[in-house]
Amino acid sequence: LDACWEKDNNGQFLAGLKILGEDVIGMTNKITEVILKSDINIRSISLDASDSLFEGNVLLYVKDVATLNRLAEKIKRIKGILSVGRLSNE
Amino acid sequence: LDACWEKDNNGQFLAGLKILGEDVIGMTNKITEVILKSDINIRSISLDASDSLFEGNVLLYVKDVATLNRLAEKIKRIKGILSVGRLSNE
Repeated sequence: LDACWEKDNNGQFLAGLKILGEDVIGMTNKITEVILKSDINIRSISLDASDSLFEGNVLLYVKDVATLNRLAEKIKRIKGILSVGRLSNE
Repeated sequence: LDACWEKDNNGQFLAGLKILGEDVIGMTNKITEVILKSDINIRSISLDASDSLFEGNVLLYVKDVATLNRLAEKIKRIKGILSVGRLSNE
């Protein structure tokens, strides 16, 4: 998984994920639950749905790429998720 | 607490909360945790911070005003929260 990096004060990196999925009731709760259980600090989160498509953008503080990849894999396993990709800073 | 209501298919109502607080690391996690523990379905969530001020907008499916008020009170108890108010649909 590719990602954009930006050094943080705590030596962690700010990385973004773009999540696409079906607009199912409870989808937002499931995604936030997975992120919280990963014990990762959320910088910002935006989860919304329109026209039966769910879109989520999250900015997270992670210590390395492996942590980000593990989280992305966990989110991908949620029923109804279509894709989890890099959120570019550009 | 005042709120705007909109009937949902499941007989629940869509209600919005606007949250203001200090931009403290972990604030986003704490708020999402409180919402998840309340077992309330999130329609959309937007949590971000700028200029040391944290702002959150959440749209939730709740069965009644009491449920919304209880959640608002729980969020208010989080350290660093300045206000939790109604999010108008207008």
